[in-house]
Amino acid sequence: MFFSTLEINRKGKYLYKQIYKQVKEGILAGCLQSNEKLPSKRKLASKLDISVNSVTNAYEQLLAEGYIYAVERKGYYVENITEFIVKEDRNKNSIPDDLKEETHAKEGWLSFSHMTSDISLFPFKEWMKHQEKAIKNHKVELTEIPHAQGPYVVRETIAHLIKLSRGIHCEPEQIVIGSGTQSLIRNLMSLQRTGTVIALENPGYPRFYTMLKKTGLNVRPIQLDEDGIDIAKIEESEAQFVLVTPSHQFPTGKIMPISRRIELLNWSVKSDHRYIIEDDYDSEFKYETDNIPSLQSLDRNKRVIYTGTFSKTLLPSFRISYMVLPPEMLRTYRNHWSDLIQESNTLGLYTLHYFINSGDYSRYVKRMNHHYEMKRKLLIKHLRAQFGANLYIEDIPAGLHFIASFRTTRSYEEIAGRAKQEKLEIYSMERFMLRNKETMKNRIDLVIGFAHIKEEKIPEAVERLRRIMS
Amino acid sequence: MFFSTLEINRKGKYLYKQIYKQVKEGILAGCLQSNEKLPSKRKLASKLDISVNSVTNAYEQLLAEGYIYAVERKGYYVENITEFIVKEDRNKNSIPDDLKEETHAKEGWLSFSHMTSDISLFPFKEWMKHQEKAIKNHKVELTEIPHAQGPYVVRETIAHLIKLSRGIHCEPEQIVIGSGTQSLIRNLMSLQRTGTVIALENPGYPRFYTMLKKTGLNVRPIQLDEDGIDIAKIEESEAQFVLVTPSHQFPTGKIMPISRRIELLNWSVKSDHRYIIEDDYDSEFKYETDNIPSLQSLDRNKRVIYTGTFSKTLLPSFRISYMVLPPEMLRTYRNHWSDLIQESNTLGLYTLHYFINSGDYSRYVKRMNHHYEMKRKLLIKHLRAQFGANLYIEDIPAGLHFIASFRTTRSYEEIAGRAKQEKLEIYSMERFMLRNKETMKNRIDLVIGFAHIKEEKIPEAVERLRRIMS
Repeated sequence: MFFSTLEINRKGKYLYKQIYKQVKEGILAGCLQSNEKLPSKRKLASKLDISVNSVTNAYEQLLAEGYIYAVERKGYYVENITEFIVKEDRNKNSIPDDLKEETHAKEGWLSFSHMTSDISLFPFKEWMKHQEKAIKNHKVELTEIPHAQGPYVVRETIAHLIKLSRGIHCEPEQIVIGSGTQSLIRNLMSLQRTGTVIALENPGYPRFYTMLKKTGLNVRPIQLDEDGIDIAKIEESEAQFVLVTPSHQFPTGKIMPISRRIELLNWSVKSDHRYIIEDDYDSEFKYETDNIPSLQSLDRNKRVIYTGTFSKTLLPSFRISYMVLPPEMLRTYRNHWSDLIQESNTLGLYTLHYFINSGDYSRYVKRMNHHYEMKRKLLIKHLRAQFGANLYIEDIPAGLHFIASFRTTRSYEEIAGRAKQEKLEIYSMERFMLRNKETMKNRIDLVIGFAHIKEEKIPEAVERLRRIMS
Repeated sequence: MFFSTLEINRKGKYLYKQIYKQVKEGILAGCLQSNEKLPSKRKLASKLDISVNSVTNAYEQLLAEGYIYAVERKGYYVENITEFIVKEDRNKNSIPDDLKEETHAKEGWLSFSHMTSDISLFPFKEWMKHQEKAIKNHKVELTEIPHAQGPYVVRETIAHLIKLSRGIHCEPEQIVIGSGTQSLIRNLMSLQRTGTVIALENPGYPRFYTMLKKTGLNVRPIQLDEDGIDIAKIEESEAQFVLVTPSHQFPTGKIMPISRRIELLNWSVKSDHRYIIEDDYDSEFKYETDNIPSLQSLDRNKRVIYTGTFSKTLLPSFRISYMVLPPEMLRTYRNHWSDLIQESNTLGLYTLHYFINSGDYSRYVKRMNHHYEMKRKLLIKHLRAQFGANLYIEDIPAGLHFIASFRTTRSYEEIAGRAKQEKLEIYSMERFMLRNKETMKNRIDLVIGFAHIKEEKIPEAVERLRRIMS
């Protein structure tokens, strides 16, 4: 009965698919009964005047998906198929409006974002050359799931690099590569008991703040004093961990002096299982003097967990960061997370490996250090010329951003609105106050990043800023 | 006093660094007292017979690091620096032996790993061409932290691809890109309350099992019957989530028939907030018949969370996977994880975007489907020729692995030891039994992956397997 209604469009492609589809729909619609016998392939083929092969293919597909079953030497029968329950019709909508995204590009915008790096001098040619080498030499590794901590040779290269550049003492075993510092710290801290206290710098990095809270930790923002995080307040908080940015505090830009560093290191040994997480996110860029040695290089008690990233020296879109775990912490980490798959692209990691070992990396960082120093100076010059006495810049020559305080009667909210109108991406200090969002009267503090903006666009961006503040 | 002991090596590089280092060490060793005045730059320069510039540089570095402070018109003074507490000497060791890694390559090994893909035909030339396009067209995006869910245009491309290839209904908004299915499911499930019940297939994927347990979920492995996961047992477990691999069950390789699919979909609507996670990890490879439609394509109630990966169709080292969230789940996900940074390399994602849109991706998958089909046939032929009646293969023509059962008196443990001797990487079924690790007498089940092994190495690998089993 049903089979006499089958229709074949001879001009259409794939005759077997036409049969497959109609029989499938017939079964789902209940036009064919459970255990009903299908016509033999030969019979159906001759009836529809098509090849037996087409019917065979259709029956095989129906069989593979479980619409029919075969009984040896007897033929094919319709399976006993449960009826669908449909609660809502999925076709009647796409997605609710509140979930839709704006997709138009930010045409004409300029940016003082602190989250970017400068791509204009990136040596893509060299990068590609090293990538080709990586493909040629690591075919086997490319077909496999990477080592949980990242390929050993890449960790060797990073260990060597940070020994030279940051004075880090470590073996490749202690390095865990990951797609970002946030993700690495998340993995590390999710080993800790719910409610473990971690102290953060305030103002600080809100992405860490929310992530750590969501990981179940008791997160305690500690107000900074002149020299950085307040040790007495850390003691008071009963923190077991403290996360700091000693080379260039985020966002204030301050450098933690040696005395505070020693106090912090001493705090870590005054009780068992205390650890300092040093986020050395942009320490490669230091102007006028040499780089500031890392906190880890001063630690003689294995209490510093060091994290570094290639997001600033290369590109944030590459997603390559790493952390260096003290041995005890490494053991715990491996016991817990041996099954966690490495997030970073192996090809990118081997490319980085050759990029560093060829010396191209150091040359590029040196070049960018100079480039950023010039750009920073130029921007500060333009800002001072434009705002004069209405501007104060805490001029700490390091990193890829600085804090600028503007005298203005406008509120943070007004400034945000006007920045949107002027198409200028800015981030105000308010955003980084993890607690105590008190703001000064007649004053707006901005975190000004200078990595993204092109030199020739600086005057225009500063002019927009003037219009926003005035 | 102290300053008369300074020694300058005139042949050495960077005179300022020599001064900086000695003064720094003098301060840390207590040879210089707090608030002690340093000699003026001029005085020290003339005394050491070096340029004032060198002393200035040394003093500036000491100042930047907080070893000394400056008083205007008076000069430089030693800071008041806390003494170090040292509990253990970090220099006396490297790392404990149990944390050291074996780093020698697996020379001479052959592999039946199920976790790899075949790189021999990978179109690197085309991939690089698309990568150049990505660099050229997405300079701004490359300097930024990527969108939490991945770039919109890449999600558009994936949405279009999986609509055609897997019948997935979704908007780009619903796609979340990540570095792996494990990581995506972890992020998704960490939104759920501790103790939420999730049912898994048993045998199944141990990496999911341990990860989900560590995320705080109540993980319930459910024994498979002939057609896949047992719906009555899911009901019994009071699961809110169930994770399945309907296209090609991992590891048994079975295809879930339409009837069980409908039963599972019906289960999901019998109570509120029930969800099915469909892990469609290697559905692109189907031999003899067409691909099996996805479970999500049958879902009319928005209860299926679909996950797919490019680890099998491209390379696992690329770390590109994605999930498709039903709108309600997407809303929860965004509310919770808006701050979580995308893990995948943006350059890789844009390269993939052009690779797919050019048609190169589909051509490659088609080519690999043929290649894998041939390799699979060849391997099964060799296995059957070698083992005869002592081998049973459940021959489901799909995916990149199959189950082979060998008649042997050896235990799983013995087999593992002998495989090591023979340098053959194999994975036994035991590994994937999440619960009830009962094994059959006189029988060894192996999960045989055929992506990694080269065709010409198949006879040798099968010969090694014979020696292992005999």
